[in-house]
Amino acid sequence: MNAGLRFLVAARRCEIDALEQLAHTGELVGAIGRLVHALQKERGISNLFLASGGTRCGPERLRQIEACAALEQAVRAGFERLDTEARRVGDSARLFSRIAYVLPGLDALPGLRRRIAALALTPAQATAAFVKLIAGLLAVVFEAADGATDPEISRLLVEVLNFMQGKEFAGQERALGAAAFAGGRHDEPRQQQWLHLIESQERCFQVFGEFASAPLQALWRDCQPPALRAELERLRRIAFAGPAGSALDTGLGQVWFDGCTQRIDAMKAVEDRAAADLIALCEGKTAQARAELAGYRELFDSAAPAAFFDEAEPLAPASYGRQLERSVLDMVQEQSRRLQAMNDELATVRAALNERKLVERAKGLLMAHHRLSEDQAHKMLRQTAMNQNRRLVDVAESVLAMAEYLPRPASN
Amino acid sequence: MNAGLRFLVAARRCEIDALEQLAHTGELVGAIGRLVHALQKERGISNLFLASGGTRCGPERLRQIEACAALEQAVRAGFERLDTEARRVGDSARLFSRIAYVLPGLDALPGLRRRIAALALTPAQATAAFVKLIAGLLAVVFEAADGATDPEISRLLVEVLNFMQGKEFAGQERALGAAAFAGGRHDEPRQQQWLHLIESQERCFQVFGEFASAPLQALWRDCQPPALRAELERLRRIAFAGPAGSALDTGLGQVWFDGCTQRIDAMKAVEDRAAADLIALCEGKTAQARAELAGYRELFDSAAPAAFFDEAEPLAPASYGRQLERSVLDMVQEQSRRLQAMNDELATVRAALNERKLVERAKGLLMAHHRLSEDQAHKMLRQTAMNQNRRLVDVAESVLAMAEYLPRPASN
Repeated sequence: MNAGLRFLVAARRCEIDALEQLAHTGELVGAIGRLVHALQKERGISNLFLASGGTRCGPERLRQIEACAALEQAVRAGFERLDTEARRVGDSARLFSRIAYVLPGLDALPGLRRRIAALALTPAQATAAFVKLIAGLLAVVFEAADGATDPEISRLLVEVLNFMQGKEFAGQERALGAAAFAGGRHDEPRQQQWLHLIESQERCFQVFGEFASAPLQALWRDCQPPALRAELERLRRIAFAGPAGSALDTGLGQVWFDGCTQRIDAMKAVEDRAAADLIALCEGKTAQARAELAGYRELFDSAAPAAFFDEAEPLAPASYGRQLERSVLDMVQEQSRRLQAMNDELATVRAALNERKLVERAKGLLMAHHRLSEDQAHKMLRQTAMNQNRRLVDVAESVLAMAEYLPRPASN
Repeated sequence: MNAGLRFLVAARRCEIDALEQLAHTGELVGAIGRLVHALQKERGISNLFLASGGTRCGPERLRQIEACAALEQAVRAGFERLDTEARRVGDSARLFSRIAYVLPGLDALPGLRRRIAALALTPAQATAAFVKLIAGLLAVVFEAADGATDPEISRLLVEVLNFMQGKEFAGQERALGAAAFAGGRHDEPRQQQWLHLIESQERCFQVFGEFASAPLQALWRDCQPPALRAELERLRRIAFAGPAGSALDTGLGQVWFDGCTQRIDAMKAVEDRAAADLIALCEGKTAQARAELAGYRELFDSAAPAAFFDEAEPLAPASYGRQLERSVLDMVQEQSRRLQAMNDELATVRAALNERKLVERAKGLLMAHHRLSEDQAHKMLRQTAMNQNRRLVDVAESVLAMAEYLPRPASN
């Protein structure tokens, strides 16, 4: 068999393996999206349950825990499958590491729920626990997007990730707003955090909009009817308008919660559609690559010799049919150009993930130089962003730029 | 078994697979270096053979062809092994594509040699053919460096690649200079091309110097004794000093060729040392990762439960021994930080490969917009660089920046 052709085939087979791997990842991302949605709902219900001293939403909470359990099993099964099938793919190390991080969180869920049932946590503590678990799950999606080797699939993963992340900020805003109205007082730090959630949310949906297909963007517009948007903006305005310490109408809490829930539930449709698009794209690309590979194989023994040197022997006469007129070298050069172009486009798509990477790096730096936990480092960055009225990513960039002025890392 | 721990292990196993893959790549790079060196020598001998109308270097040429054949088999065997063992690694597609490109070149070598034996080629044509084949082999090394997932190994690959590339420019300079002295006349276009080779060469050795270890830099200094450097600079000066068309001492041709050969042979020692360092590093890293993995495995069933939520149950008392005091979560976070830091450093190292990528992209653009072959596109870029007295990479950047002003791509 022609050795050049064999490596042409080997290269394509590598791509197919990577695409099949991505198809599993796509399914996993869908499963994570459903679990995150259910956990967001459980977070909301648990808050109402705790805030009411256990008198409200008890049965609803149990039903939601039930719903979460089934979705959690699906995510765990998706993790298993990745482990079994992807063990040879070197770039999976970071993905697996994220999974290793979030699994203890899932393991700790029953304990968290027991403490909530026993009213041993404040609503804020329960919210923080769910926020942390959901962040861990979204980090898996982030790593999947960053590890994808196909630019179109990577683009869809970036789109899904930003939508999920934006929806999570919307969920946090719902909880924060509900707590603010329930508290009955304007509260300055809470307003700051609220503003921050609005901005982070909008930033995510902006990136999503840059990457989403036209039908998906239309679906996203449809799920935010103007009347609902106006109502939520009115409630935000009421919460922000008063001076610190002044009274806030507690009766608006339920209105706020219901409006937010309506918006978030509608987002679910966009997320499901994006996840379905992702799986369809992976399947389509795998099928296409397989068909091409079959085409290559037909050429195996019959292909025209390659004219590597301009001065070398002329090509064998093209009498074997149309397909054989193209020399192996043409095919190789075409493949090489295509892989190069894919790689360039991949770099462009991945740039959209850069913001998050900058924040991660700045956190890592603060953890090392100030002996902070990850949570503490994140809070420090977020606090600085809020104090200086700057975006988190801009603060992260400043931290990285000032690295050499930070105290020396604590030696371990 | 603790699920988080299992993925911690899976992540490490992925890294080990990638390291073992890199060890094979390291050996292949060494084999390519040896073959390139032999082909460079065959190129020089073939030139003398052709220029003398077949009266000089005949037996030497046959011996060198013999030497090349053994080294070619080693490279082909290295390609085979990659194909067999790396088929599941998605990122190998570009590496395989480069191999698919260069293999027809190796297949076409016997034909090229027959034409040289028959004196059917000019020295310039023969040189161009060898240059093309060597460029194809170096492109494999480039892709290996770009695909490495370990920053230290990537750093060594970048170092080796730049040294090999610089050495190849030195080899081309030897051939060009020999032809210039043999021609007996100062020739303006040839001087331009010569200058360009000197600059490209120096740029490569500069990048090499930025990445090389201190012992390797010392070795590199040792293999360029001042007397030899002075002699070669003197000959360059003579070749450049005269006005176009004026006479050049043909007797200096042999002096030039011998001096260059002495320098290039000395470079071989640096290259061999760098290749040995590379293999040692891969082996050391694989052994270290395996030892760590064995350490993880001991923890499998006995590890302390992870405290994912700050408010969750306290850790089990640390009575199982020192190692178990660290929770799985600490280990996961440490792994995650390490992988993140590796990825950041990798980005830094790969930036050194960017120049070449820019040139490749600019070539691709010219090929698409001007219906040029790869060779033609490269010549066009190089000609512009020479005319404007700019570096190739700067011209490539201008081409990319002006992309939208280029004629529309020829539809296929």
